[in-house]
Amino acid sequence: MVDMILYREKMEQATRILNELLLDCWLLFVRETDEQPDPALKLIVNHDVTWQSAFLITRQGERIAIVGRYDDDLVRQSGLFSTVIGYAEDFAPALRATLERLAPTSIAINYAEGDVAADGLTHGMYLQLLKALNGTPYPQRFLSAGPLVSRLRSRKTETELALMRQAIRETDEIFQVVTNFLRAGRTERETGELMHSLMAQRHLGAAWSYDGCPGVKFGPHTLFGHGAPGDIALEPGFIASIDFGVSYNGYCSDLQRLWYVREAGEMEPPEVVRRAFQAVKGAIEAGKAVLRPGVQGWQVDEAARTYLVQAGYEEYKHALGHSVGRHAHDGGPLLGPRWPRYGDAPYHRIEEGVVFTLELGIMTERGYVSQEDEVLVTADGCEWFSRPQEAIYLI
Amino acid sequence: MVDMILYREKMEQATRILNELLLDCWLLFVRETDEQPDPALKLIVNHDVTWQSAFLITRQGERIAIVGRYDDDLVRQSGLFSTVIGYAEDFAPALRATLERLAPTSIAINYAEGDVAADGLTHGMYLQLLKALNGTPYPQRFLSAGPLVSRLRSRKTETELALMRQAIRETDEIFQVVTNFLRAGRTERETGELMHSLMAQRHLGAAWSYDGCPGVKFGPHTLFGHGAPGDIALEPGFIASIDFGVSYNGYCSDLQRLWYVREAGEMEPPEVVRRAFQAVKGAIEAGKAVLRPGVQGWQVDEAARTYLVQAGYEEYKHALGHSVGRHAHDGGPLLGPRWPRYGDAPYHRIEEGVVFTLELGIMTERGYVSQEDEVLVTADGCEWFSRPQEAIYLI
Repeated sequence: MVDMILYREKMEQATRILNELLLDCWLLFVRETDEQPDPALKLIVNHDVTWQSAFLITRQGERIAIVGRYDDDLVRQSGLFSTVIGYAEDFAPALRATLERLAPTSIAINYAEGDVAADGLTHGMYLQLLKALNGTPYPQRFLSAGPLVSRLRSRKTETELALMRQAIRETDEIFQVVTNFLRAGRTERETGELMHSLMAQRHLGAAWSYDGCPGVKFGPHTLFGHGAPGDIALEPGFIASIDFGVSYNGYCSDLQRLWYVREAGEMEPPEVVRRAFQAVKGAIEAGKAVLRPGVQGWQVDEAARTYLVQAGYEEYKHALGHSVGRHAHDGGPLLGPRWPRYGDAPYHRIEEGVVFTLELGIMTERGYVSQEDEVLVTADGCEWFSRPQEAIYLI
Repeated sequence: MVDMILYREKMEQATRILNELLLDCWLLFVRETDEQPDPALKLIVNHDVTWQSAFLITRQGERIAIVGRYDDDLVRQSGLFSTVIGYAEDFAPALRATLERLAPTSIAINYAEGDVAADGLTHGMYLQLLKALNGTPYPQRFLSAGPLVSRLRSRKTETELALMRQAIRETDEIFQVVTNFLRAGRTERETGELMHSLMAQRHLGAAWSYDGCPGVKFGPHTLFGHGAPGDIALEPGFIASIDFGVSYNGYCSDLQRLWYVREAGEMEPPEVVRRAFQAVKGAIEAGKAVLRPGVQGWQVDEAARTYLVQAGYEEYKHALGHSVGRHAHDGGPLLGPRWPRYGDAPYHRIEEGVVFTLELGIMTERGYVSQEDEVLVTADGCEWFSRPQEAIYLI
């Protein structure tokens, strides 16, 4: 469990951001959050709720929870909300009365076309909200909480950064065990199982879907996608690429590391692999050189993408990087190309205090040559947050 | 992992239900499902997807997946979809072309005010869908997939029933270990930790939020809600009530059992506890007597509620029962009162083949006297699916 100090830090941040964005109120409206989580809720509430629940944070710093019976004790116990209203039959009267008292002129709710992390309100719950507030002026004051949630998630507090550093440390230590384990004959699946058992020993969660975390790719015929590691065994001359992250007390890491299994008599990887590795690292450095407060994410992606193409390789089919935090893909600003499917995420202005991944790979005849590391945006640039791999690990 | 036969069974059921409901097409539209799951998706797709993905099932039995690169290999490998279209930049052209080819006159999408299990489409994704299909006639043909998803989830196949029976067996076995563990001095927390370790040994998931599963209530001062077990220790004269369910290969159980710690010289629980236990069991039997295909859930709840009030107790502040399956609260029809917060769920007509819980409790001066069991709706009534506790376990 993340310490309660963290929830209080994020609550205070939320109030500051409401003031920055000139928003009167943030309204989170959820139910049965263990089945249908709102990714933004867990930034400010430390447990699941069952019935329809409305959480309101105002620009003045007021914090109100309207929750079903049986949930209200838990919310009171957390001490995070100044007012806790429990109900048995219907949440709507309490919500209407609260909004009438606050009289907000703008109400941010959790929908965002381009940001899964700010899009926790389901369409059915949106319709419920309209119905509950029918005849009041409040539905006309709804707007997307996207910009608020994006800032709240991506501006890491000191407590959050400390947890994320520990998540990286755990990930590095697991990669070290993997280095000793890998040799010709080991399968992707065996490697994945070893890493799952190391996660369990260390009480670490997966940074994304458990089955696909780690993503293990051996050699040139590995299956792409985010699925479970397969039956392919390492052979001399193969590259092993592993994409892996852990969740440490609710905060994630996301790194990719690279190994090469030497053939008899080989001292180093073949030219095709070394050249690809240098191109991957060069492209990541080219992106990193552009990343600083005020730029837009697509500019960072474009620098890396252009470098790679000029080095004679195909463009990667994804974004160069994403924010990391409570989730490996933490939403908000994206270091990605201006493709329709990314919506407005590549256009966000980058802020200080965000942790991004920088990641890409090249498919070669020996396997997938890839790297992924994390950087922290500073006042005038960015710095490595994880320590990049300097050379391919040789098996 | 649930066997692929199960996904095929549910796919075939979906096509049958589309025909029953005279719906042309079911469209699931999702992204980053490990962060924002659509509860209905996991009935028919065996893994997470990252980018925007559209899954279409038609009345004629056609199955089409439009998914991002890197996810398409996994979907092809599953063999569940007859057509798999991968995209890199934008899903919209493929979705428009597919709908133009199918020309459906009705398109069910996953929103439902009263059913979390059918409400997986977020409001932001709904807006994306409108934008992608702007200028086409299809948005006007959208309707709620609620009735479809409700039937699909609640009609259990033989494969599903077998998994659920095993989940109950595992739960019963864990309760037996708990019976040997409980004694004066044991705390709620210690009991919860024992049960978590037994779950881990048996490779079982929690049927709801891990922290609150089991829910452990010792004595009259226990905290209500779905939170983690607390520091209260068992004392002579206390009732112990445990609400617990496991997830066995993706299918859940949900049971409540009751223990009493005798005081020196006591042979049986005091009158106040025995009377409450009989009232709880009587109310559950009264509900069970009414439960059969064709009735509405509120009628079943009303029978139990009336029994309890006539026995001189307060009404319970929740529904008598809910469907169980992939999730402990499996959505669809509800055996609950006609309260606004339950929407239309108490009005669904009950069908054969659904597994419901029947559950309620009475707070007494010795603790929370409660029971919860599962029943399977048959052609002309219902039968116990779990085996009810006959008497309070004595410590």
